[in-house]
Amino acid sequence: TAIKLLVLPGDGIGPEIMREVRHVIDWLQSRRGLTLDITEDLVGGASLAEYGVPIRDEVIEKAWAADAVLFGSVGDPKWAHVGFEKRPEVAILKLRQELGLFANLRPAKVFDALVDASTLKPDVVRGLDIMIVRETVGGIYFGNPRGIETLPDGSKRGINTEVYTTAEIERVARVAFDLARKRSNRVCSVEKCNVMESGLLWKEVVTDVHAKEFPDVELSHMLADNCAMQLVRNPRQFDVIVTGNLFGDLLSDLASMLTGSLGMLPSATLGAVHENGKFPALYEPIHGSAPDIAGKGIANPIAQILSFAMLLRYSLNKQEEADMIEQAVSNVLESGLRTADIMSEGMARVGTSVMGEAIVRE
Amino acid sequence: TAIKLLVLPGDGIGPEIMREVRHVIDWLQSRRGLTLDITEDLVGGASLAEYGVPIRDEVIEKAWAADAVLFGSVGDPKWAHVGFEKRPEVAILKLRQELGLFANLRPAKVFDALVDASTLKPDVVRGLDIMIVRETVGGIYFGNPRGIETLPDGSKRGINTEVYTTAEIERVARVAFDLARKRSNRVCSVEKCNVMESGLLWKEVVTDVHAKEFPDVELSHMLADNCAMQLVRNPRQFDVIVTGNLFGDLLSDLASMLTGSLGMLPSATLGAVHENGKFPALYEPIHGSAPDIAGKGIANPIAQILSFAMLLRYSLNKQEEADMIEQAVSNVLESGLRTADIMSEGMARVGTSVMGEAIVRE
Ligand SMILES: CC(C)[C@H](C(=O)O)[C@@H](O)C(=O)O
Ligand SMILES: CC(C)[C@H](C(=O)O)[C@@H](O)C(=O)O
Repeated sequence: TAIKLLVLPGDGIGPEIMREVRHVIDWLQSRRGLTLDITEDLVGGASLAEYGVPIRDEVIEKAWAADAVLFGSVGDPKWAHVGFEKRPEVAILKLRQELGLFANLRPAKVFDALVDASTLKPDVVRGLDIMIVRETVGGIYFGNPRGIETLPDGSKRGINTEVYTTAEIERVARVAFDLARKRSNRVCSVEKCNVMESGLLWKEVVTDVHAKEFPDVELSHMLADNCAMQLVRNPRQFDVIVTGNLFGDLLSDLASMLTGSLGMLPSATLGAVHENGKFPALYEPIHGSAPDIAGKGIANPIAQILSFAMLLRYSLNKQEEADMIEQAVSNVLESGLRTADIMSEGMARVGTSVMGEAIVRE
Repeated sequence: TAIKLLVLPGDGIGPEIMREVRHVIDWLQSRRGLTLDITEDLVGGASLAEYGVPIRDEVIEKAWAADAVLFGSVGDPKWAHVGFEKRPEVAILKLRQELGLFANLRPAKVFDALVDASTLKPDVVRGLDIMIVRETVGGIYFGNPRGIETLPDGSKRGINTEVYTTAEIERVARVAFDLARKRSNRVCSVEKCNVMESGLLWKEVVTDVHAKEFPDVELSHMLADNCAMQLVRNPRQFDVIVTGNLFGDLLSDLASMLTGSLGMLPSATLGAVHENGKFPALYEPIHGSAPDIAGKGIANPIAQILSFAMLLRYSLNKQEEADMIEQAVSNVLESGLRTADIMSEGMARVGTSVMGEAIVRE
């Protein structure tokens, strides 16, 4: 039976970089006998424009039914005034929550060919390879009570609640320790246990899981503010970082910017493996919808293409095809092709579709 | 009547760098006719060791009675197992809250002589001069409910609450806009309004204060994750950043690390001006207690000395004396003296007391 793929390009540059992935998929279908049953649908501002909501229940159902979801990005200043419940971002938040996608894997890797793209000195970032494991269905993103209330004197109070349970921390910690075993075997757990009790519980539970199930992995703990500093001071000290939803949001963006080439970085958000073998998973680039360059044909399609390679690897167990794509990207970079975001002297500047075609050709 | 100063050296390198400030004070008392009535007391681990609590009520009262508080730093791994209520950090959190010190001013400034100390390329950070205004008595640091509860099945739930009211946001926004007017007249307000209602209220209130009271200042808004990226990508785009307690904690540490010389950066935490003229204020270095180098005589005393200069400027209105100190620091750097943390080739490496003496001599 064909593998079911749900493709959600979303807003901004989403559709144009997704087009390049489709070319890669076409090639794999015709040359490698891969049979993918692909459905495409709207999310974010694109869905708001068509249906008045950032994501339809129908799309959530399709995501459940699919073997994997390939996501572009959401967010568009055009919809800034649409109200909190309807904002484009709800699309990705709902997908994460409804599919139980609790572990967001965000690699921050410096490509040798692009070491000069970083604002950090080459000596500080050369060879950088961090994996941030961010919890994505808990914490302050989803806790209750939340909202804005009006006080008797007419002034207001905004409230959000950070909540983490033992079980929520355990399962994401296991993902981090498992990954570390396949890498340099080190996990750094990050929280603010000196200020927040939820962080204190986080630290305790990670320590427990480590002692009971992963004593062979090296575990350290770091405060989130110090982690932000250490990522700037000496990022190569890290292998795997595991942290909550909010800290993960900031720290993974910070870490990816250290590479200087956001347009290169894919991510995976994984759910639990269910008893019937179902394994919900969503793949998306680290970068956002970049409305400022949308439609200009200059966006870098590589992060989206590498997100598809991650999908092949983690969800479809197609290691060979994933390798092929990653190797093709690497070869194209070696050959000197660059989109605007990673351009440097002496290289050949190309647009979205030339970059996509070059990767297919390779 | 003499000016009352409460000096709280705290833990780690706190006492040894504070000693150098005392030499600066001695000089000002004998040569500039300044009369300071100085009380010194224990906080943090030092207070735990002596009194079994991280800060005594008596010290809070002395802080209230003082014209200003000069703080060192707290935190010591020795006290890691003392329990959440008694941890050394409670000292600074209580001082902020009991004195109503709601606006933490954290400059991130690159000193010309030290531009190479940064891990970022000189071209990216040369001339960097950001002022982060961080709210410090609200947000998730102090909101209720909070704590760790045990569930019926024996597992646990950790909870913290982020709360911001209109009034809390207004007053810190005003501090930021006021400061911007004396600088490059630009404020960037940072939150996660795409995920958190407290951030949505933050954005609305800052927008209101701007429209009503500071229309001449340029205001922009940025998501916290994007701000973490932009600080790495192009930090000089910022003038004043205003943000909540938790984001401010991470972003100000990140920003200060961009300078590469944490040991140079002072900070001020200011309260409201009361009707009787009282103006509670606390001054402390950005860096922490650095237990790894404590007692070795190699810590950089400059951040602590510059914190005292800020105290002279903001609390005592002694502009001339503040200028003298800042100029002395600058001259000593020009002359080539460096502590270990800012050492570079061709400079003269000195310890804490030689650096302190050199500044007094200047
Ligand atoms: C779009 C937004 C809601 C989202 C988040 O904050 O999680 C994004 O920043 C991300 O990191 O995936
Ligand atoms: C010591 C700690 C409680 C404190 C904080 O988190 O506010 C520190 O990191 C700071 O930034 O002053």
